[in-house]
Amino acid sequence: MSEKYVYRFFSKEKCEGSAEMKSLLGGKGANLAQMTSLGLPVPPGFVISTKACLHFLANNNEYPEGLSEQIEEALTELEQVNGKKLGDNEDPLLVSVRSGAAISMPGMMDTVLNLGLNDVSVEGLAKKTNNPRFAYDAYRRFIYMFADVVMGLSKDYFEKELEKMKEKQGVKFDSELSAESLKELVEINKKVYEEHLGEPFPQDPKEQLDKAIRAVFNSWNNKRAIDYRNYHGISHDLGTAVNVQTMVFGNMGDDSATGVAFTRNPSTGEKQVYGEYLVNAQGEDVVAGIRTPEPISHLKDHMPEVYNQLIELAQLLENRYRDMQDMEFTIQQGKLYLLQTRNGKRTGIAAGKIAYDLVQEGLITKEEAILRISASDVDNCLFPSINWAQINPNAPIKSIKAELKKRQLGKGLPAGAAAACGIAYFTADGAKEAADRGEDTILIRVETTPEDFHGMAASKGILTMKGGLTSHAAIVARQIGKACIVGSERGGITIDLEAKEVRGNGLVVKEGEWITIDGTDGAIYQGKLPTTPAELPEGMQKILEWADEYAKLKVRANADKPDQFRKAIEFGATGIGLCRTEHMFFDHLDIVREMILARSEEERKIAVDKLEPFQEKDFEGLFEAAEGRPVIIRLIDPPLHEFLPSEEELLIEIYEARLAGKTEEDLKEQYNMLEHVRLMKEQNPMLGLRGCRLGITMPIVTEMQSRAIFRAAAKVKKKGIEVMPEVMVPLVGFETEFKHQRKIIDRIAKEIMEKEGVEFKYLVGTMIEVPRAAITAADIAKGEKGAEFFSFGTNDLHQMTLGFSRDDAGPFINKYLSLDIMPADPFVTIDQVGVGRLMQLCVSEGRLTKPDLEIGICGEQGGEPKSIEFCHKIGLNYVSCSPFRVPIARLAAAHSALKDTKK
Amino acid sequence: MSEKYVYRFFSKEKCEGSAEMKSLLGGKGANLAQMTSLGLPVPPGFVISTKACLHFLANNNEYPEGLSEQIEEALTELEQVNGKKLGDNEDPLLVSVRSGAAISMPGMMDTVLNLGLNDVSVEGLAKKTNNPRFAYDAYRRFIYMFADVVMGLSKDYFEKELEKMKEKQGVKFDSELSAESLKELVEINKKVYEEHLGEPFPQDPKEQLDKAIRAVFNSWNNKRAIDYRNYHGISHDLGTAVNVQTMVFGNMGDDSATGVAFTRNPSTGEKQVYGEYLVNAQGEDVVAGIRTPEPISHLKDHMPEVYNQLIELAQLLENRYRDMQDMEFTIQQGKLYLLQTRNGKRTGIAAGKIAYDLVQEGLITKEEAILRISASDVDNCLFPSINWAQINPNAPIKSIKAELKKRQLGKGLPAGAAAACGIAYFTADGAKEAADRGEDTILIRVETTPEDFHGMAASKGILTMKGGLTSHAAIVARQIGKACIVGSERGGITIDLEAKEVRGNGLVVKEGEWITIDGTDGAIYQGKLPTTPAELPEGMQKILEWADEYAKLKVRANADKPDQFRKAIEFGATGIGLCRTEHMFFDHLDIVREMILARSEEERKIAVDKLEPFQEKDFEGLFEAAEGRPVIIRLIDPPLHEFLPSEEELLIEIYEARLAGKTEEDLKEQYNMLEHVRLMKEQNPMLGLRGCRLGITMPIVTEMQSRAIFRAAAKVKKKGIEVMPEVMVPLVGFETEFKHQRKIIDRIAKEIMEKEGVEFKYLVGTMIEVPRAAITAADIAKGEKGAEFFSFGTNDLHQMTLGFSRDDAGPFINKYLSLDIMPADPFVTIDQVGVGRLMQLCVSEGRLTKPDLEIGICGEQGGEPKSIEFCHKIGLNYVSCSPFRVPIARLAAAHSALKDTKK
Repeated sequence: MSEKYVYRFFSKEKCEGSAEMKSLLGGKGANLAQMTSLGLPVPPGFVISTKACLHFLANNNEYPEGLSEQIEEALTELEQVNGKKLGDNEDPLLVSVRSGAAISMPGMMDTVLNLGLNDVSVEGLAKKTNNPRFAYDAYRRFIYMFADVVMGLSKDYFEKELEKMKEKQGVKFDSELSAESLKELVEINKKVYEEHLGEPFPQDPKEQLDKAIRAVFNSWNNKRAIDYRNYHGISHDLGTAVNVQTMVFGNMGDDSATGVAFTRNPSTGEKQVYGEYLVNAQGEDVVAGIRTPEPISHLKDHMPEVYNQLIELAQLLENRYRDMQDMEFTIQQGKLYLLQTRNGKRTGIAAGKIAYDLVQEGLITKEEAILRISASDVDNCLFPSINWAQINPNAPIKSIKAELKKRQLGKGLPAGAAAACGIAYFTADGAKEAADRGEDTILIRVETTPEDFHGMAASKGILTMKGGLTSHAAIVARQIGKACIVGSERGGITIDLEAKEVRGNGLVVKEGEWITIDGTDGAIYQGKLPTTPAELPEGMQKILEWADEYAKLKVRANADKPDQFRKAIEFGATGIGLCRTEHMFFDHLDIVREMILARSEEERKIAVDKLEPFQEKDFEGLFEAAEGRPVIIRLIDPPLHEFLPSEEELLIEIYEARLAGKTEEDLKEQYNMLEHVRLMKEQNPMLGLRGCRLGITMPIVTEMQSRAIFRAAAKVKKKGIEVMPEVMVPLVGFETEFKHQRKIIDRIAKEIMEKEGVEFKYLVGTMIEVPRAAITAADIAKGEKGAEFFSFGTNDLHQMTLGFSRDDAGPFINKYLSLDIMPADPFVTIDQVGVGRLMQLCVSEGRLTKPDLEIGICGEQGGEPKSIEFCHKIGLNYVSCSPFRVPIARLAAAHSALKDTKK
Repeated sequence: MSEKYVYRFFSKEKCEGSAEMKSLLGGKGANLAQMTSLGLPVPPGFVISTKACLHFLANNNEYPEGLSEQIEEALTELEQVNGKKLGDNEDPLLVSVRSGAAISMPGMMDTVLNLGLNDVSVEGLAKKTNNPRFAYDAYRRFIYMFADVVMGLSKDYFEKELEKMKEKQGVKFDSELSAESLKELVEINKKVYEEHLGEPFPQDPKEQLDKAIRAVFNSWNNKRAIDYRNYHGISHDLGTAVNVQTMVFGNMGDDSATGVAFTRNPSTGEKQVYGEYLVNAQGEDVVAGIRTPEPISHLKDHMPEVYNQLIELAQLLENRYRDMQDMEFTIQQGKLYLLQTRNGKRTGIAAGKIAYDLVQEGLITKEEAILRISASDVDNCLFPSINWAQINPNAPIKSIKAELKKRQLGKGLPAGAAAACGIAYFTADGAKEAADRGEDTILIRVETTPEDFHGMAASKGILTMKGGLTSHAAIVARQIGKACIVGSERGGITIDLEAKEVRGNGLVVKEGEWITIDGTDGAIYQGKLPTTPAELPEGMQKILEWADEYAKLKVRANADKPDQFRKAIEFGATGIGLCRTEHMFFDHLDIVREMILARSEEERKIAVDKLEPFQEKDFEGLFEAAEGRPVIIRLIDPPLHEFLPSEEELLIEIYEARLAGKTEEDLKEQYNMLEHVRLMKEQNPMLGLRGCRLGITMPIVTEMQSRAIFRAAAKVKKKGIEVMPEVMVPLVGFETEFKHQRKIIDRIAKEIMEKEGVEFKYLVGTMIEVPRAAITAADIAKGEKGAEFFSFGTNDLHQMTLGFSRDDAGPFINKYLSLDIMPADPFVTIDQVGVGRLMQLCVSEGRLTKPDLEIGICGEQGGEPKSIEFCHKIGLNYVSCSPFRVPIARLAAAHSALKDTKK
């Protein structure tokens, strides 16, 4: 007896496959078998196993022994089950022939539909459906699909004939061709077929089937499939199965229909069967959007029995698949067929609600619920999004977006998932004033600088022409939770600050006009689109609380101001991982410049002392908001010339004034500033006098900042609120640098505790951002006076380890990604192979000399799920990210821990 | 019987110590014992052991049992040996009391001279020496030395009295005081002593001796000594010995003298006793320079017996110490005493000759000869130096330098040991023109840029105001072998390019005037000083040839032009370790700008193609000079905007023209350039679009350079000369970058070999300068298409690993060195703890995947001995440095290997 190669899925009772037989039946075949054995009304059919395929390919395209007979037998039985015969001239059985490998390879292999049509059976189909137009169209298509997929003849020959026919008939769309024209086209197609292939189009359905099966077998080794497997690292030894399945038609009269249904509402997550259907139609008609489908609820009146069956089916599917399902169904002459079911796509809000509800319903565990939520689901809740349902409650989002293309100026890089609409303003001041008047505004700049901050904070969203995902605009926007699209020049957008307009795709938005930006895909629209508000809905909140139970990593926030921090706490932050003191400096630029331009140490001290009360007040606010949570405050980091105008700006200012008649004498102050700026100018400021190098060369600044921190801490502690300051020394590369600064910090702490008569614990630690710090971590952490915590400054650590300046690397990073020189942008996700190895070394050596060393990360990558998983793997204590990334980070932390447990 | 604490060194026969007893007798004591036991005429004395000191310190300043008696006994014997008694009123025995620990701690502890003088013995001394002035001066000094060292009374009290006396006598110098005045001063000093110490100055010599011994014991624990030991990591448990030695005097008449002699000529190394002496004088008189000493040869006529004894002594000492000796001697009434002998200081030339001769004489081995030569000895030969002997053949260099102080403008940082004198020019063009006229010139600039190169090459030396040891001026000067002093502003020098003058120390040198710069100490002199020419003398050459036999590391040169390389080969280079192709680009700036400013790929290709013949010609010259030695050619490295003017320069040019009446229209070209410059501007060019990032984004440049290299190689090979090109891809961080570039290089090599019909071997490798490259070395070296060699670009590797921009770090590096935050400037010597660890990792992992990987270093540190030793330790194959560092590198390589063998 020959081996079994053919597996039937005829009915619950007669089903030879199961979900576990994926490697033999392929993913699709196993799924069909499973659905069938669950009793779902799947159109019957059979699967030819991958084993048959492998034998075929290994033996010079010969079927294994017995396969022909098994197919013949199964086909005969299938005809019996259906009560129809393949190629019948009254009521022909038509089948689809599809490939299906064990691992999904979408678009890789081919499908033949409507197999069984020939010159005779097409007439039967026309009669049976009472729709000759449909029948000829199906036959016409079958011929060229067969020619293309099975015989390898280019579609172009057939497309050309179709175009000719349309021209001849004077119509524009395929759908306008009459049954007669289509019939004529069938004849033409057959001629083209014979002309190029040297044989007539096969009229014998069994020959059609045999050829189709062989073609599907061979498609396993087509170039497309091999490339795909090479790229994805899939074995070439799996082979594909072949699925032969009865075709069903929703266009066989008013008792037929086709539709899509979700077991729960994919927008809100509500438990209700949701979807739409079209009577007497095919699936294609739904997508084409020529007729408007009806909501699924109408089916209740129209075909009550089928409706009830659908409701039952929904419950059955959810019980089986333990998730919301997206079903494709067809009703053929009053009989419901399920063509496909899969986990349904949903909005973030729905994802949260559904996962939470499924736990309540006892269908899934908490762990499963957490793992089902993705970062983009959370993102989706956290930010306003475009309210597609409000634009068109019935159309799928895809069609609405297609419709909106004509209002789209172009696309940029989305710095976050938020959408926003507002009135366009091209200056920070303009945006701020308008916002103060109560307008919703979008700030549009070529790129932003710290001086634009007030305009950014006042606006609903920010749009820039230049810069990448870690440009100033992108970082600030994420931190303050604004919609933001950057680098739009790559998407064809021009921002003209002089003309105050943004242009793209032939459209113009001028200052004062409405504009909408969509962070989900970076699209920029003219005019105002409706949006939904941002919130963490209840379901999502609950799931994140569960997530915290599983996560090993804590999540802190990067926050410079109390209100930012309060927002972060609301989102679940357990402390501040990075407070950048210099952001406060920008609020007192005049004093900072006084400090920089001081002509003596005495003068400098006066300016530094003036800054102290402002810093103290800021820190007080942070400690109050923290209520005992740890607050990492980083001492001043950037090179001081960042607080001065640039040489070029000054030169232009001076010369323009002189061209306007001013004398050198009039411009004394500007010339003086110019001299200072030139003195302080650096070739590579990133690697210059900054970080702790400032604190070491100007210890009074470290003293002042330490005083401000500890005085604030003392004050808050006296109010009865716990404090936990953690002072962070930036840019340490040598242990001696750290110890130099720590000595000052410890001395000031002691002085202030004695003076204020209050005691509190504090930590002194360092950022790990210079590669040398990672290499010498053991020395830096060593001993009582060593660092008590490390925080990876992964932005700078990547800049130095890779030798990439974030400001300058944009052009070649894009080139590198397109050439596959790098797998991902290292300023978005940690370069695990290179920088990651340094981080691992740092963690293990740091803990070698100080086992309880607290280690976290505060770079931009700290809010990115893959990076978070890496941080979990190497044993960090926490990640810190912008407040609006905190929920995502909590989720990612839990995911990492759960994946770990699984292993 | 009590333990033995006192050890005599009376004569060859009566000598109780030896060289091996250093820990018991201290370094000085052991040395005296050794000299005595060799039969050298050392003034007799005895040593009190460190053990006595330790007991004393541990027991509340009590002598151990028996010590008093042992001292008493030894003293009595010493009196007998000398035939004089301590404190005698006719012919008193005087002794010195000196400390002496096992490890030399220069200047740390104290000495008392002329002990034994009192109111009675001083008269005896006056009579005996027939020199009352000397006797009272000795007594006056003894009182205050005793007060200071033994009793801890400040010298200031005595100095004040001395000043008063000089005022009273109306004289300026101590030496002008009469015997009477000095006698008076003795009385005054005794009064001061009693007044402040509450007891009269002790007249009993034994009491003097006892107190002095106790004071020396206690000096082990004075603050100065403790600090010194802490700093140098010397144990506090060693204790000091006390040396009590007979004083001898060279001022006891015309049969007495004092002098210094070298066993060989310290300037030339010739084997002849060399030195000078002063009749009837003390050592101090020689140093004071009041009387002119006579050459040692005169002694032959003056005291033939003593002269012969000295000649014999010289041979005896050389045989014993196996090196050239520097002896201090005193002749007291016809009897020769040797006070000290030690290895003599010598010039580099002498060092080479002496070491070589000693090997020939069978006194030392080749290994010893190599180890005796220091880097600065080699340096000293390689560069012109100031000819001090020509300025004053009789005075020691120290005195000549002191004399010249008034002509010294100040000091800068010496970028090499060379000295040069020439006429000052303040522009490169000026210097070049003058040199073309045949003048010796010194180019003086605030700092140099590549555009000054022709002026630097034409001059004898370069002087700059700004920049450190790795500034452009310093690097280029070392490479082309010029004297160079940089960063002179720190030494008080101002260079005024407008006034064309250099100022300092109240002196001015204007353009057209002579100036001299001394690379040994960075001194800058007004006027012309004589110099000796540069050469590698025979002795040194021989030793370096021996060195090559021992060295494991090969030495290559960094050279961009054939003549540089030929010089390097002359100095012993085995190949080129780094040829910087972009240096050639500066010779064709117009074409390079055409390439950069091209508006299309076609335009760019035209410009790139124009460069090709120039590059090819350059490479041809290198391969010809190499004669089969390996030549590493690095593909273009710097960011392209380095070849354009700066934005600031352009702005000033444009605006100045506009102020002068030009319109925007007139300046179209400049505005066009400005636009380009702005587009290409980078925040941190070091981390921007450069290195292989250029080759990847503009592959036509890699193609052009590869073509030029391989065509040149083919041409030279066809002439019958072997070639070994090694193409180096710069700034690789990802293995994929390397493979991308290697693919192009391999393809071009194949094309050219086929086209030219010639075969040659070549290697493709990469620089390791981005930390990520070091971390992922295994991946970069892996496989057939991996890198075949690595070359550490330690300049950039330090910049990135430490986060120090070489151009900007100057100010804080100095601060760091002064605060001991770093032990050394990492741009001079490899940071072994940090960067070194990364290098080690790179070597071991690179060789893991490719065991025969060739690894070298081509950064500035490759010519620095400590770095070379490190390179040896981690197993590199070669170091590469500027041609003029090659001999030093060869020596250092041998030293490293020999030290290794010793261990």
